Amino acid sequence: MPDQYIPRREDKFSFGLWTVGNRGRDPFGDAVRDPLPPNDAVALLAEVGAWGVNLHDNDLVPIDATASERDAIVKGFIAACRRHGIVVPMATVNLFYDPVFRDGAFTANDSRIRAYALQKTMRAMDLGAELGAKIFVLWGGREGTETDACRRPDEAIKRLRDAVNQLCEYSIDRRYGFKFALEAKPNEPRGDIYMATTGAYLGFIQTVDHPELVGVNPEVAHEQMAGLNVLHAVAQAWEAGKLFHIDLNDQLPGRYDQDYRFGSANVKAAFWLVKFLEDVGYDGPRHFDAHAYRTEDVEGVKDFARGCMRTYLILRDRATQWNADREIQALLAELNGDGREGARPPTSPDALLAATFDRVGLAKRGLAYERLDQLTMEVLLGVR
Amino acid sequence: MPDQYIPRREDKFSFGLWTVGNRGRDPFGDAVRDPLPPNDAVALLAEVGAWGVNLHDNDLVPIDATASERDAIVKGFIAACRRHGIVVPMATVNLFYDPVFRDGAFTANDSRIRAYALQKTMRAMDLGAELGAKIFVLWGGREGTETDACRRPDEAIKRLRDAVNQLCEYSIDRRYGFKFALEAKPNEPRGDIYMATTGAYLGFIQTVDHPELVGVNPEVAHEQMAGLNVLHAVAQAWEAGKLFHIDLNDQLPGRYDQDYRFGSANVKAAFWLVKFLEDVGYDGPRHFDAHAYRTEDVEGVKDFARGCMRTYLILRDRATQWNADREIQALLAELNGDGREGARPPTSPDALLAATFDRVGLAKRGLAYERLDQLTMEVLLGVR
Amino acid sequence: MPDQYIPRREDKFSFGLWTVGNRGRDPFGDAVRDPLPPNDAVALLAEVGAWGVNLHDNDLVPIDATASERDAIVKGFIAACRRHGIVVPMATVNLFYDPVFRDGAFTANDSRIRAYALQKTMRAMDLGAELGAKIFVLWGGREGTETDACRRPDEAIKRLRDAVNQLCEYSIDRRYGFKFALEAKPNEPRGDIYMATTGAYLGFIQTVDHPELVGVNPEVAHEQMAGLNVLHAVAQAWEAGKLFHIDLNDQLPGRYDQDYRFGSANVKAAFWLVKFLEDVGYDGPRHFDAHAYRTEDVEGVKDFARGCMRTYLILRDRATQWNADREIQALLAELNGDGREGARPPTSPDALLAATFDRVGLAKRGLAYERLDQLTMEVLLGVR
Amino acid sequence: MPDQYIPRREDKFSFGLWTVGNRGRDPFGDAVRDPLPPNDAVALLAEVGAWGVNLHDNDLVPIDATASERDAIVKGFIAACRRHGIVVPMATVNLFYDPVFRDGAFTANDSRIRAYALQKTMRAMDLGAELGAKIFVLWGGREGTETDACRRPDEAIKRLRDAVNQLCEYSIDRRYGFKFALEAKPNEPRGDIYMATTGAYLGFIQTVDHPELVGVNPEVAHEQMAGLNVLHAVAQAWEAGKLFHIDLNDQLPGRYDQDYRFGSANVKAAFWLVKFLEDVGYDGPRHFDAHAYRTEDVEGVKDFARGCMRTYLILRDRATQWNADREIQALLAELNGDGREGARPPTSPDALLAATFDRVGLAKRGLAYERLDQLTMEVLLGVR
Repeated sequence: MPDQYIPRREDKFSFGLWTVGNRGRDPFGDAVRDPLPPNDAVALLAEVGAWGVNLHDNDLVPIDATASERDAIVKGFIAACRRHGIVVPMATVNLFYDPVFRDGAFTANDSRIRAYALQKTMRAMDLGAELGAKIFVLWGGREGTETDACRRPDEAIKRLRDAVNQLCEYSIDRRYGFKFALEAKPNEPRGDIYMATTGAYLGFIQTVDHPELVGVNPEVAHEQMAGLNVLHAVAQAWEAGKLFHIDLNDQLPGRYDQDYRFGSANVKAAFWLVKFLEDVGYDGPRHFDAHAYRTEDVEGVKDFARGCMRTYLILRDRATQWNADREIQALLAELNGDGREGARPPTSPDALLAATFDRVGLAKRGLAYERLDQLTMEVLLGVR
Repeated sequence: MPDQYIPRREDKFSFGLWTVGNRGRDPFGDAVRDPLPPNDAVALLAEVGAWGVNLHDNDLVPIDATASERDAIVKGFIAACRRHGIVVPMATVNLFYDPVFRDGAFTANDSRIRAYALQKTMRAMDLGAELGAKIFVLWGGREGTETDACRRPDEAIKRLRDAVNQLCEYSIDRRYGFKFALEAKPNEPRGDIYMATTGAYLGFIQTVDHPELVGVNPEVAHEQMAGLNVLHAVAQAWEAGKLFHIDLNDQLPGRYDQDYRFGSANVKAAFWLVKFLEDVGYDGPRHFDAHAYRTEDVEGVKDFARGCMRTYLILRDRATQWNADREIQALLAELNGDGREGARPPTSPDALLAATFDRVGLAKRGLAYERLDQLTMEVLLGVR
Repeated sequence: MPDQYIPRREDKFSFGLWTVGNRGRDPFGDAVRDPLPPNDAVALLAEVGAWGVNLHDNDLVPIDATASERDAIVKGFIAACRRHGIVVPMATVNLFYDPVFRDGAFTANDSRIRAYALQKTMRAMDLGAELGAKIFVLWGGREGTETDACRRPDEAIKRLRDAVNQLCEYSIDRRYGFKFALEAKPNEPRGDIYMATTGAYLGFIQTVDHPELVGVNPEVAHEQMAGLNVLHAVAQAWEAGKLFHIDLNDQLPGRYDQDYRFGSANVKAAFWLVKFLEDVGYDGPRHFDAHAYRTEDVEGVKDFARGCMRTYLILRDRATQWNADREIQALLAELNGDGREGARPPTSPDALLAATFDRVGLAKRGLAYERLDQLTMEVLLGVR
Repeated sequence: MPDQYIPRREDKFSFGLWTVGNRGRDPFGDAVRDPLPPNDAVALLAEVGAWGVNLHDNDLVPIDATASERDAIVKGFIAACRRHGIVVPMATVNLFYDPVFRDGAFTANDSRIRAYALQKTMRAMDLGAELGAKIFVLWGGREGTETDACRRPDEAIKRLRDAVNQLCEYSIDRRYGFKFALEAKPNEPRGDIYMATTGAYLGFIQTVDHPELVGVNPEVAHEQMAGLNVLHAVAQAWEAGKLFHIDLNDQLPGRYDQDYRFGSANVKAAFWLVKFLEDVGYDGPRHFDAHAYRTEDVEGVKDFARGCMRTYLILRDRATQWNADREIQALLAELNGDGREGARPPTSPDALLAATFDRVGLAKRGLAYERLDQLTMEVLLGVR
């Protein structure tokens, strides 16, 4: 019954233009695939069953396009999206490719570069709004250092805050209604990127003028590059009401940015993440920020895109199964002490100080986590 | 002229009882050094020139001491501190050694363990207050997972928040005046620890009832374990007004917790950190949370402690030299555009949108960071 | 049909005494489980379905046992093994726990420690031979440094070679017939361990007096700690005829030594490894060098041990399925050019230099690795 | 007295054409510097004081050059080298940039690609020989996988061996007299690269037909990417007589390939490495395989190149100072037991088995490594 793993619109699967359009260039090698024009990418996404497409400004409009060129391109793209039934849930801005941003955009030392970065972002917001996007992602890939001699990091944070504040004002002023989703990454392409983790952005957001407009866009690979548990980062964002978007892909820890097909490197981590998103009722886009191996032609790109969605759906199915597994649920109920205690522990300070606890006894109880984890693996591997 | 590197009281160098008292036990080997009684540790710290001593409750008072035993021990310790002129700037609680906490303290599934952890922490606060500490560190070393089957991570965050809220109330109620400093760590002893980075805690703090009482205690090794730039984490904490304490030590990325002598693994990172703390005027304790190699006897422990402080002072000296270096300062002035621009970039949205920028020209300017970094290395290596 | 995943003797599953006997001590916490006497460990292993037990000398015989105590213990252990039908395929020596080895055993600077380490190993070989072991593992966990000031690393290699040569001579002299399996690890408990990877040992082996007696014991976690692909290390060892033993467990990269249940962290890597061992016909022990989480009691230890074996058997089954999958095999046949070429490429230098190749054409062919990997994931997840 | 840090010919400092010619392209951004024609690169290297230049075939000769174009280019390059007094100690082949090699060269599944890779390498050997190079480096940057579904890794090793054997024959046949230096890397640009560490190549070399012609080219960054101690890898290669070349640069562990200026990331590791090379009398090229930050213009490229050499010379100076430091030498003499023992430990098996050792006493002796390491840091920082 493979039909259950065919993507549907309500699954909200989206891909960036840059993902299926990735040409396989890397630090040691040239492009291996021909350019995929944006409108063709939309057609490809429709063919494989995606719901949405996301883009950086320059994925669609060249950086040096004239206004009329830009308008013609946008018009054609909107038509392509309509024709193929593809929506644009999120837009973003490319502040990393052009050499002008080689030492940062919002945090660059040169105030003219900072101003240009703001202008470029405002125009990308115009574009995103025109395409109907309600989420605007900011990834500051060049905001960082190879040597901390270049500026004080607290100065960089102030500059970043100024930029976010101005962009919030602009969204309000233009009534764009954007939610900003800030995306962290520890390093690459900079030696160190400021705001290295989703957590760092959760702290930063509280210091901007309009925190209600600003959330995060955790990326699986970006947390895993630093060896961090992406589920924990996503859960903190969700619990704080800040999970505005998510980037799904895969990655082994302690390496260059691999952007692998979702679930293909650490399928157990992917399982926990899918389970969490489904359990809490996250209803935003499931965006795949990944790309096909460099060994692939355009058919391989489709295989890649189909694989991302298919694995998500398999894991969603496994999560449902996990939730329904009686042995697993019995172990969890036992762990959480259902029906165990006659009296709840005291909560007033004085009562708490006066209470006695059987420290040694509590320490002796086996928690059956090996059993629980093995059952999880068996659900995952399809042998239960 | 080595005298300039002798520690003085105003340098505020502190060590935990557990640091000089570390016995060299590790996962594959037994203790190699005899126990160092707390009062002897105080004497040792005075001998090597430290200013303060910090402690977990059970570094001083055994977990199963009676009230009268506890009082006798504390009395003796206060006398030893007075005798040796050592202060107690910070206290903390051990929620990780005893088997009862093997699956967490504040976030344990068993509500009795959570209650016991709170009680134990309140008593540790009593102890800290009695010793004169004004900073209370919380490191949740066991708050984490080996398998995420055991609980939902957002539930763990709620439990952690409840605990911090109760402890803030207790500090207010007892008029202890504590500042709480939360210490992050990515993993070890748990597979993954919740609140993996300083950034995660900066986000968390905004969600507690008394955020003004709560800050962070970044540890060099804990950020570096995850390959993160510790300066960036510390700077974010400082800029947010949340740098309540700091743990200085050293560590290579992607490894077990090494807790090396400050500056001995990545001296360049240590240099930037010392320079930042001195430049911004951080006036809290410089706490060394490290320990001697397992190859050392008690004389080696003293060498270790002296080395931490001495390296800090050497780096402080180098930072002063860096700030005074005319070539470095000229490069920085050039970078920051001193006197360059006749007109500042526009800040109003419409003016900004209308502005034109010489993108290609701005991209061509060399930033001389290789020169700046090489000069930094030469200051550091003492050849300028 | 769960029966297919019940371990059988011919599966050659073995565990170290130290694995099921692990008491859960870690750098931040005390033991959580009672000691498991060796003979009880043998009974436990028989109960869960294992075939063999391995041991360090001191797992069975205390370091300070008298000769008669030793003999009594060994006699009892042999009886227990016979009673439970458990064999001892491998023995090894503990050169890491006792403080005397805190700066190395065979590579220590003190020649008396080196001599003692040799003596201890020879006695462990006597013990292993008495128990019927034919494989002797050497893991030099303390052979390393925290500071390279202590000795020249090439000197350490010479000392290590001397030791291996003497032990080979001893095995020959006593007609023990041991195959030595050298086990690499990058770090922990030392800052850096000499012979950091299986590859390093494959190089080293060629420099000893009796290379035919010496091979390697790759450990999954030890390669993965350094972020290396364990399959590639094992395959190199196998191809060189040096895969004398293997340690199965699991681990996330860039962390402390986790020694997780086999297949529980990176199940895809575990799948490739099982598939390789089965495809090439490796017929040595499948040794699980892992331990139960610290949250477990003795029932959890059994769950852990059963889980290791069960996951191996599930993965073996999946490997068979992968090999039989027609779509996968068709893709592989296509990749390997079955029936493609009329003429094979030239091999003589002059013919090769004169040949012409369609570089551009060869670069355009899609290799369908995304499809192949997605099919692999679907075999693994049990949806094909 | 800065003159002591000016490079001289006898220092044998070399750079690849690709290092000073690096244009700053990365996965997220375009080139930032203009192309540097090879002959201009030679002039630049002469200007900054280098001794040698190395190259891949296509650094000099475009991949699609005709024979006559190739000859004209080579003639001009030889003239430029003569004019500027620059030698070509090493040559290599680019088997990674062109899309034809996207799934490997010598290990590709397609036999035509393997044949083409051999042909290209033979021509690169012709070129190297013509330029006077005596060392030929092989870096198999594309020999690896993103999914191990694509081929068995032992098959890849066999293919690699075939290639190396054929190239050795070719060198012998043409009387080129090359020493082959194999360069390992763990990952990037492939998910995993076969022969991940220098150790793996040391094992592999013993299995080729002409092991005497084949050695290794350890690269600092490549070992450090995997968190390994590069000194230990280099020392093993040296001790085995296989250190045929070395690539000096810098890198933080667990990241993308940073190729930083030598000594700028982990100066302590760089110090130990320089000290080792100088202490053992390594007399091959000191090759810097690194590149300038992307923030730099051509002046910054010169700063980068000068910095590499200058830091090497500073560290060489510090190594001399370390060797002459009386306190350090006294500690080492004590450690190595100079004059300590009346009798050496026994070496015959029976005498060794009969000997008694004071295990507890030997364990009590402090080794003063903290002191030794702190003195090292103070030598390094220039305060002794």
